[in-house]
Amino acid sequence: MSDTDRLDPGSMARAFREARRRGMDVEPAVLFHDLGRMRARIGRIGAAFPPGALHTVAIKANPLVEVLRAAVDCGAGLEAASLEEVKLSLAAGCPPDRIVYDSPAKSRADIAEALRLGVRINADNLDELGRIDELVGHGGAASRIGLRINPQVGASSIALTSVADRRSKFGVPLEQADAVRAAFARYAWLAGLHVHVGSQGCALSQLIDGIGRVEALRQELRRAMGPLAAGTMDIGGGLPVAYRSTDRPPALEDYAAALRREVPTLFEEGTTLITEFGRWIQAGCGFAVSRVEYVKKDSAGRTAILHLGADFLLRRAYHPDDWHHDFMALDPEAEPKGGPLSPCTLGGPLCFGGDVLARELAFPELSPGDLVLIRDTGAYTLSMWSRHCSRGIPAVLGVDADDLRVLRERELPEDVVAFWSRGRGRP
Amino acid sequence: MSDTDRLDPGSMARAFREARRRGMDVEPAVLFHDLGRMRARIGRIGAAFPPGALHTVAIKANPLVEVLRAAVDCGAGLEAASLEEVKLSLAAGCPPDRIVYDSPAKSRADIAEALRLGVRINADNLDELGRIDELVGHGGAASRIGLRINPQVGASSIALTSVADRRSKFGVPLEQADAVRAAFARYAWLAGLHVHVGSQGCALSQLIDGIGRVEALRQELRRAMGPLAAGTMDIGGGLPVAYRSTDRPPALEDYAAALRREVPTLFEEGTTLITEFGRWIQAGCGFAVSRVEYVKKDSAGRTAILHLGADFLLRRAYHPDDWHHDFMALDPEAEPKGGPLSPCTLGGPLCFGGDVLARELAFPELSPGDLVLIRDTGAYTLSMWSRHCSRGIPAVLGVDADDLRVLRERELPEDVVAFWSRGRGRP
Repeated sequence: MSDTDRLDPGSMARAFREARRRGMDVEPAVLFHDLGRMRARIGRIGAAFPPGALHTVAIKANPLVEVLRAAVDCGAGLEAASLEEVKLSLAAGCPPDRIVYDSPAKSRADIAEALRLGVRINADNLDELGRIDELVGHGGAASRIGLRINPQVGASSIALTSVADRRSKFGVPLEQADAVRAAFARYAWLAGLHVHVGSQGCALSQLIDGIGRVEALRQELRRAMGPLAAGTMDIGGGLPVAYRSTDRPPALEDYAAALRREVPTLFEEGTTLITEFGRWIQAGCGFAVSRVEYVKKDSAGRTAILHLGADFLLRRAYHPDDWHHDFMALDPEAEPKGGPLSPCTLGGPLCFGGDVLARELAFPELSPGDLVLIRDTGAYTLSMWSRHCSRGIPAVLGVDADDLRVLRERELPEDVVAFWSRGRGRP
Repeated sequence: MSDTDRLDPGSMARAFREARRRGMDVEPAVLFHDLGRMRARIGRIGAAFPPGALHTVAIKANPLVEVLRAAVDCGAGLEAASLEEVKLSLAAGCPPDRIVYDSPAKSRADIAEALRLGVRINADNLDELGRIDELVGHGGAASRIGLRINPQVGASSIALTSVADRRSKFGVPLEQADAVRAAFARYAWLAGLHVHVGSQGCALSQLIDGIGRVEALRQELRRAMGPLAAGTMDIGGGLPVAYRSTDRPPALEDYAAALRREVPTLFEEGTTLITEFGRWIQAGCGFAVSRVEYVKKDSAGRTAILHLGADFLLRRAYHPDDWHHDFMALDPEAEPKGGPLSPCTLGGPLCFGGDVLARELAFPELSPGDLVLIRDTGAYTLSMWSRHCSRGIPAVLGVDADDLRVLRERELPEDVVAFWSRGRGRP
């Protein structure tokens, strides 16, 4: 089974029309996040794994507090890649024991604060375990602490987001299993293992192979140290999603079934299973609409200038062969444009040559005032916003069945001025 | 003559030690900008070109209000790539007639506001001229208005920052010179031409060729329409800088001399010459220091984890072959580290595999608590800051001879929470 489920373009256009009808802030560009779809995805994860599992949403995919709050309200935990993301989790109302703090660069101060807050921590390396031990003292920690292992199963097809090749900077490599055994013997507070194989660009077999290798180590630790040892297994996120109508990524349910079959101990009583999906939950929830500001024609072809560019779709602009989005042309009434297709380049609003979202796309005729809909923008887009040329971030609107609400107000020029002022963004 | 002038590593390390001695906010990472060097560079531009020229600093290279204010205070104008950057210019105290507003995506509202403010405007295309005409009315504009021409002289060696190839999204292509002539005949308020050929990766001959072609068109317009027509020529920025000790970029003075020789009409009485240097002014003014948080060793080599990564050095992380920085190892006292060199990977703090600043660099032994100095970080680094993983931006300190002052306070976790909250970054 493949997971080709994507938001319907008709409903996206309707949401835009409705937002404009209500006088919401949709010009010259606006971002949407479908909270109903997000809840459904979180629900699917819960249904596919055992009831006692903790499913966190990776904040780095989409850090809006209102998005996180909606996830927490339907039972998800949150995965934080920085101490700032831990604070975002708390702001979103997440209980500390449902927050998982992962980062390869935790300072002593970060660790002390995380322990004080009682959030779960995955240590990245053996030195970090030593620091935690100094800070935990001998009384044990309210924080559950795991250790990230690099399963060394090789890179994904997208080099820049690979995390489990031999050269990865993340985790303790599996080749150092002896040191991991020694750490578990030494630190009574060490509660489990963590692995994250990758996501977009990873084959299902690779994900399962990586998790299987780390789970085998965990089982070995449990055999050596007793059934209460290493009770937590965090399998990370890591399921690719469909960005094209022709993409056929594995279904989540097939992934869970394959894990149950190939790595059955993950599903046993006595194991606290943790997941950290980000892209799989959020990517398809998001879409964006920009007005076409200009259409330029010359002997090299035509270029439409939009109000979203490399600031929003950073990876798309810098590595277009790895990162795809579908674009749809709408007329000024946000109805689909028909007519003959011809090559059209979609340029962003930034003053640099690489600020191009698509080159020579087969696209209908476009005029200023038309709209371009960008699909599947819910993950690793706004979250990676680059301030290049200092354009204000558009409003983000939440779609929730028939309701629409503001998830983040549009940045005004004075907000941007405050951002670059001496007082760190405070007006 | 080549311009190999770079800040001395010894003085950079001294600035760090002094900032720490004064209790300034240097942990776990800090950015510096040398204002004295910036003033010297602005002074060199003024000396190399005729006295009546307007020299603007491209804000997108470094948009800190305190940096812009220092530039304005020594006589520079500012070049704005967005309406937000126009507002940054005003916040920095720049008079409107010294602000040049360039953007390929100006909306009607943007244009109306720019005209109201009386800033200089470079239109990107012919449709924009039509919009300006509607808004200017018949009374003429306080704003001086130019038109950007793409000289179509070919791409630079760095594809992503090319702006003057045939496929560029910027300006009116020179092949449409007839339409440009018609525009000058129609719009009495049209005051000049604008060209920007490129910067890093451009040969001097290519820069001069591009400017020469557009200047030839301007001279033709003046012959046809009289000596008061098309009196302004904005030649953009576009001089590469040295990021390596082996780089031999052209000296600014040689560039100006070559222009005077090859395109002498630029230097004639009656022409208002405008420049828009960004990288050339700012890149070498900046440096950054990060603590080494962890050093990881395995059979694949060693990796030091720093507190600056793809959030700060975005282009370096995404296109390491195009964008170089020199790194230097310092001990915890910020003294240079000696000893044998061996391959060391410098990883950033973000949770993605591509967050690597250097792979297998020949580097001294490193331990946690050591420091890494990153050179030439003054342009297109902080200005492009990506929020990926939501880490707070380090403090930026200004070096001004023997003085040190805060240009931007460090972002705290609560600032980042406010940034992602509903109320667009306001606490």
